[in-house]
Amino acid sequence: MRDTYDVIVIGGGISGLSAAKLLTEAGLHVIVLEAQNRVGGRTHTIRNKEVQYVDVGGAYVGPTQNRLLRMAKELGIATYKVYLNGHLLQHTKGKSYKFLGAFPPAYNPLVFLDYNNFMRTMDQWGSEIPADAPWKAPHAKDWDKMSMKEFIHKVCWTSAARRFAELFVNLVVTAETQQVSTLWFLWYVRICGGTTRIFSTDNGGQERKFVGGSGQISEKIMAHLQDRVKLERPVIRLDQSGEVVIVETLNREVYQSKFVISAIPPILTTKIHFNPELPSVRNQLIHRLPMGSVIKCMVYYKEAFWRKMGLCGCMMIEDEDTPIGFTLDDTKPDGSAPALIGFILSRKASLFASLTKEERKRKICEYYAKVMGTEEALHPVHYEEKDWCKEQYSGGCYTAYFPPGIMSQFGSVIRKPVGRLYFAGTETATVWSGYMEGAIEAGERAAREIMCRMGLIGEDQIWVSEPESTVSSTRENKQTKHLYDFG
Amino acid sequence: MRDTYDVIVIGGGISGLSAAKLLTEAGLHVIVLEAQNRVGGRTHTIRNKEVQYVDVGGAYVGPTQNRLLRMAKELGIATYKVYLNGHLLQHTKGKSYKFLGAFPPAYNPLVFLDYNNFMRTMDQWGSEIPADAPWKAPHAKDWDKMSMKEFIHKVCWTSAARRFAELFVNLVVTAETQQVSTLWFLWYVRICGGTTRIFSTDNGGQERKFVGGSGQISEKIMAHLQDRVKLERPVIRLDQSGEVVIVETLNREVYQSKFVISAIPPILTTKIHFNPELPSVRNQLIHRLPMGSVIKCMVYYKEAFWRKMGLCGCMMIEDEDTPIGFTLDDTKPDGSAPALIGFILSRKASLFASLTKEERKRKICEYYAKVMGTEEALHPVHYEEKDWCKEQYSGGCYTAYFPPGIMSQFGSVIRKPVGRLYFAGTETATVWSGYMEGAIEAGERAAREIMCRMGLIGEDQIWVSEPESTVSSTRENKQTKHLYDFG
Repeated sequence: MRDTYDVIVIGGGISGLSAAKLLTEAGLHVIVLEAQNRVGGRTHTIRNKEVQYVDVGGAYVGPTQNRLLRMAKELGIATYKVYLNGHLLQHTKGKSYKFLGAFPPAYNPLVFLDYNNFMRTMDQWGSEIPADAPWKAPHAKDWDKMSMKEFIHKVCWTSAARRFAELFVNLVVTAETQQVSTLWFLWYVRICGGTTRIFSTDNGGQERKFVGGSGQISEKIMAHLQDRVKLERPVIRLDQSGEVVIVETLNREVYQSKFVISAIPPILTTKIHFNPELPSVRNQLIHRLPMGSVIKCMVYYKEAFWRKMGLCGCMMIEDEDTPIGFTLDDTKPDGSAPALIGFILSRKASLFASLTKEERKRKICEYYAKVMGTEEALHPVHYEEKDWCKEQYSGGCYTAYFPPGIMSQFGSVIRKPVGRLYFAGTETATVWSGYMEGAIEAGERAAREIMCRMGLIGEDQIWVSEPESTVSSTRENKQTKHLYDFG
Repeated sequence: MRDTYDVIVIGGGISGLSAAKLLTEAGLHVIVLEAQNRVGGRTHTIRNKEVQYVDVGGAYVGPTQNRLLRMAKELGIATYKVYLNGHLLQHTKGKSYKFLGAFPPAYNPLVFLDYNNFMRTMDQWGSEIPADAPWKAPHAKDWDKMSMKEFIHKVCWTSAARRFAELFVNLVVTAETQQVSTLWFLWYVRICGGTTRIFSTDNGGQERKFVGGSGQISEKIMAHLQDRVKLERPVIRLDQSGEVVIVETLNREVYQSKFVISAIPPILTTKIHFNPELPSVRNQLIHRLPMGSVIKCMVYYKEAFWRKMGLCGCMMIEDEDTPIGFTLDDTKPDGSAPALIGFILSRKASLFASLTKEERKRKICEYYAKVMGTEEALHPVHYEEKDWCKEQYSGGCYTAYFPPGIMSQFGSVIRKPVGRLYFAGTETATVWSGYMEGAIEAGERAAREIMCRMGLIGEDQIWVSEPESTVSSTRENKQTKHLYDFG
């Protein structure tokens, strides 16, 4: 007779590993089945002599991401602040403008008001959307019928604000404004703390990175879980027709358990053949949540020449021809391996996928030279990139998006268990969904749902609020610029 | 050593079987792997003593569907005209109105103009969209950014026209107006011959049904192919890394071939684990084409009471509370098994999925009684239904839809081979896509693409135009009402 596990966790990303860690610590018999030959999912730290280490996937951590900061602390992973000394650059209509603060400047008072109104309206509408049930928002049906393209058209009056709004959406969810639901997008921004928090480096979602890379979180949990994590085990079959749940992998191993946690993006559960079939609404939901499109590109230079120029390395590029829409300094905290990280976003990711790696590198450097106004950008010493769109077992990055009309019609079953199958993954989170923080919230919540079902904890113990971390607290950041303070 | 096939066909629907038939007739060594325990895919004929036979999936055939008519003729399957003697009913704002012709009446001249303008605009815009490359339409990018909700809002001025336009979209593509791209929808209508052809029973897409059911098409091709069709073989793996293509099924059989045709909906190819991974844009395309939502419901009565009342049985019901949006007479051609077929469309399919079969039947009959104004509708003698949304190996019905922004960004690779893997399925058709006709066009085209690659035919023989069928010709139907003639 084969071993019966308490819980099989499908997916060795941060969500699945967080679930497995919690369940193992509670004394349960757990196994994690990961499709790839590494853990981490949409986080991945590459190491080589040129870069030392670099996060080619999810990388950033900031205030209010308390579960992630707690987990990093427990695993002994330190954070450092992303370099922000100097001016940011906005490149629009062929010209570059220096600025300070989170958002590009607006010298024209009308544009200033328009920017402000766009942000305020998103936050105001967002405040009406319940974090745990966006489909129950008072205007859920109407807002879900509207794409963000329509929202922007309705709210923004100046072309400058519209251009920035488009980049804002492209950058925040790696999708086009016409592809995403307003209800979903405003929910997403809301549960990340609002427009300023989600967009900011200083005191925002991109405040810090992990010394040694975010990949260590999964690697260290895996080390902790020992042989409970099985790599190169894509799940092909999940059978709930008998007394135990049967899970089969592509390499023809058969596992059995009392419960299962799916800790992979909803759309990747289509890779599993279910018996019995999934319920009607869930079967259709999982076909309706595509993953965003992004290629992450790291260009390494002999020195961080932008710093000498009084620039921090953050560029926001609003231009149809540029591959990269947004950059940040990606130099190591000790000043070594000077680099800029840039994001090829959404439509650009499809467009530039057909070039060779070398061609992409060249185009990127040309744009950097243009935007910063220096030929130094043309002479990189090394280049790394990762096209998440072609990853079979991620489907894209950063996260799933809801097209118009999906949240209100199908969304309410996103976390609803199917028999003994429970759902984790950052897409099922109610805080910082799409981020590492959401992955942990979702993984731990799914683990507790099963512990509750097993009678180990009470129903009121499933959803646990997280104490504020001392590593990157909102208090510490009190001095920084706040909402709607456009440089 | 195992057998090396010339071609493995994935999917035993009409498209896959048409491909296999053509290849086999050309002398090639072919096998069809079908996931379910029956062929037919989204066509399925159920047989029992109450109904004799009934199509619970794709059923209709009409003029210009010449490949389907040719195939039916070859297989010895006769057609009959759907009953259309008497008035149609439109039910709107709580009242029923009798009418004749394809479209509901408009007594108000403003509404008449508005209806007309809606149809004309769809057809005019549609005429600019290339059947084989909608992403190349002159306004492709702009129209693809717009949902049909926006199109309707822009074009229709009266609430009557808007209500009808919404039902038109719901019925034609089983999705919500906000969920579908205008570029895609207008292409879809265009390649089905325009608004009147696609919507009409008389001289339109719903003109005829098959005596004995549409399921016979696949059943008879299967009989012709003999043991070349393998049932209950969901494909889990496709490996192109070696000299031959390896295809593995859920029951652990391994097949090898020179070429493969995927004849399943694009989104169902996510069920296959690919080695090497699919190219970037295709990997993301297949996550972005959800299948529509419909429950087909057949209510049987002791007699076709509506005929006595001067009604043909066609009802168009514009009402938020009704499960059914559209009905047709579904009585057998000899007058036996009197029945109405009704469609629970799009959002209603999600909403009414949670009821029991018995509850759905009751609600449907209550609405029929209300719309036709007779208690006779409350006393059915039998009921059949099929919820396509819960079918794992269909994903929904009738067909895949393109949400806003997908066609222009990802659409151009829809038929692009990946190595030795070719694409059939009605979604890849350039005429009557979404219908049985499109399935045959796509299957035969994919088969010829491979024959061309094998050097058996020339490149100019891949795309073959089909002679007009004599069974249901546009000539025969010359007398009937034409475009924009709103009763």
